[in-house]
Amino acid sequence: MLTSWVPNAERTDFSIHNLPFGIFSTSQFGPRAGVAIGDQVLDLLGTVQQGLIDIPICTISKPYLNDFIRLGKTKTNAIRQNLQHLLSQVDSPLRDFPKLLLSQKEVTMHMPLQVGDYTDFYSSQEHATNVGKMFRDPENALLPNWKHLPVGYHGRASSIIISGQNIHRPKGQLMTKGAPAPIFSPSRRLDFELEMAFVIGKNTQVGQSLSTADAEDYIFGMVLFNDWSARDIQKWEYVPLGPFLGKSFASSISPWVVPLEALSDFRLSGPQQEPEPLPYLQFSGERNFDIQLEVDLQPPGAEASTICQSNTKYLYWNITQQLAHHTSNGCPVRVGDLMASGTISGPTEKGYGSLLELSWGGKKELQLQGGHQRTFIEDYDRITMRGFAQRDGKRVGFGEVTAQILPSIE
Amino acid sequence: MLTSWVPNAERTDFSIHNLPFGIFSTSQFGPRAGVAIGDQVLDLLGTVQQGLIDIPICTISKPYLNDFIRLGKTKTNAIRQNLQHLLSQVDSPLRDFPKLLLSQKEVTMHMPLQVGDYTDFYSSQEHATNVGKMFRDPENALLPNWKHLPVGYHGRASSIIISGQNIHRPKGQLMTKGAPAPIFSPSRRLDFELEMAFVIGKNTQVGQSLSTADAEDYIFGMVLFNDWSARDIQKWEYVPLGPFLGKSFASSISPWVVPLEALSDFRLSGPQQEPEPLPYLQFSGERNFDIQLEVDLQPPGAEASTICQSNTKYLYWNITQQLAHHTSNGCPVRVGDLMASGTISGPTEKGYGSLLELSWGGKKELQLQGGHQRTFIEDYDRITMRGFAQRDGKRVGFGEVTAQILPSIE
Repeated sequence: MLTSWVPNAERTDFSIHNLPFGIFSTSQFGPRAGVAIGDQVLDLLGTVQQGLIDIPICTISKPYLNDFIRLGKTKTNAIRQNLQHLLSQVDSPLRDFPKLLLSQKEVTMHMPLQVGDYTDFYSSQEHATNVGKMFRDPENALLPNWKHLPVGYHGRASSIIISGQNIHRPKGQLMTKGAPAPIFSPSRRLDFELEMAFVIGKNTQVGQSLSTADAEDYIFGMVLFNDWSARDIQKWEYVPLGPFLGKSFASSISPWVVPLEALSDFRLSGPQQEPEPLPYLQFSGERNFDIQLEVDLQPPGAEASTICQSNTKYLYWNITQQLAHHTSNGCPVRVGDLMASGTISGPTEKGYGSLLELSWGGKKELQLQGGHQRTFIEDYDRITMRGFAQRDGKRVGFGEVTAQILPSIE
Repeated sequence: MLTSWVPNAERTDFSIHNLPFGIFSTSQFGPRAGVAIGDQVLDLLGTVQQGLIDIPICTISKPYLNDFIRLGKTKTNAIRQNLQHLLSQVDSPLRDFPKLLLSQKEVTMHMPLQVGDYTDFYSSQEHATNVGKMFRDPENALLPNWKHLPVGYHGRASSIIISGQNIHRPKGQLMTKGAPAPIFSPSRRLDFELEMAFVIGKNTQVGQSLSTADAEDYIFGMVLFNDWSARDIQKWEYVPLGPFLGKSFASSISPWVVPLEALSDFRLSGPQQEPEPLPYLQFSGERNFDIQLEVDLQPPGAEASTICQSNTKYLYWNITQQLAHHTSNGCPVRVGDLMASGTISGPTEKGYGSLLELSWGGKKELQLQGGHQRTFIEDYDRITMRGFAQRDGKRVGFGEVTAQILPSIE
């Protein structure tokens, strides 16, 4: 089996089988493209300049990956193979240039993409069912459309931020129980949502629709996605046009974009779909992914507690169905667009992907390490999500997406 | 009063008091910035190259206005004054360069903006009331939150297109009355929505909130906006997360961005707001605009009928309230973002800004010129919206936004 000569790489999320792309900077130079391997970052521009690989310089010297992705899968996959070669061969010429590998600890990661549009789906049956039980009819928790189409909505692209950027608690209109009128206040029910998002890798035109069979050609890769949610703002504002300011204060993504090809060994079939979807949503092959997901909550000055363990495989609607549905009306997609899954909840309580579900609407205190308790996120809490796939000794991971919640701005 | 030496300019939408910016191309050169005056376009790059005005060339030689707008109001308003001078003075040096003025008929207009994010509000009380009467409780047509905040949702930026670009009828999932399951079909209830949109002129940072007093400093100008809607797709998909594919197939904008300053003579007070909004939504001064709006429907091969006459002044929530609300949670806005008003319906039936309202949910045939009838839009129908302000002999208009509906793509 392929292994990298970079020490311990195979034990990390960023093994030779992964090679995710990201944007990093150092004290020496500004944002440019890199590839994660083990606990190192390979400087792509430097690698090209030393003549070790051939990549158009204008696509890797920019502060975002869009132009690189726009090269197309034929080229980016060939580059990926060459990188695999350079990072695995014992006599790799790259070993003569140790300065091209930088410690991940010593670089700053940046938003890897210019995101044109961001869409959030609602594709976990467990999550939709939990929400339906809490807020609607426990006996008919799923709405009539849910099993016929991947419900989704347009989100805000401008507030997508990189892992590590901290977030001030959002303010907004809340209607408290029994109050005569709404108030304007910092959110009291601040939550995370455990999601994954895929990155569009190829443009479509206005009017063009993609089949489920073609959809993956238009998907470059995936990231972890924390769709922060202010439940109280959302509750008051969302009827009838959907979530707005309860979501748009921030969404955090992990810095390394894992190419879809790196996930090919971790495919599996998703849940049985019943009723059978309409023809444009039917698909063949294994279109779900076995990616283990975890969420930690760390109170200030305390140890982190893992409060959720879920898996991408639980998603009812897969990414080819999501993209086929999204383009079924002719809506164009563009390189760098993000499409998030919606909260990925598992079938048992420990797999619930939000505090809303874990605390069952705030009714149940979550017990954390060191005697701490939580229903929703408190100031200075840190939320960290991790995701990785592992099978037959191969590990392909996403690293983490993390942020601390700071008090509201006065 | 100021008048232009360009023939008949003062009788058109594009008088000396207007001077809107747009992006045009000719058979001689690609997309660049221009200013409309009468039935002409002033080539800004050419005007700079002849030494007649000082504008950074890199901001007007691009295929979008974002970099020009990013110069800031101090600079763009000074440029506007210089242009007014050049286009009104009888001995203007510009008159020696007649080739700098091109007939609007001979140029091609392009999308004037790179739109980062697009938001659609729902700010007409008349429209929200009509929709509530039709789909919910006629006695309690407005939802409880409506008078407390400007309800809005995130729209899709990738499908915003320029006036004149025709649109194929979208397909999607519909649930027909009494059917056991949804079908996938071309929309049968295709509609327009008469809206205006404002263009963000200055970036904010993540976490920054704008007051209503500061909001207009962040607004560059306005355009006409047709928020095309497939009512049947929308109806089936929109619970609980709001409109998605029923809207995202296309939204059309007028090509000329009218600076906010051109509308200063047409300000007025909006409807009385009761209950009094929360402090962050209170404002002073006249923040509504007296802009007359019209919609024409032209069946194939027939005369156009004006089916709606409304006015921007009816909007309950004004643009300073919309922007203050949008940023109240710290959501950042960026130059080029669009924020649309929602359908602008007037108080009487002839002012209803959508076919949904004009045909009262498809129950009433609209009578058109030449014996034609419509409930919703049919293939090859053309929808044209116009908007203009007029007072004391001054006219400032938006031109039109028009598109023809073509049959669905097979």
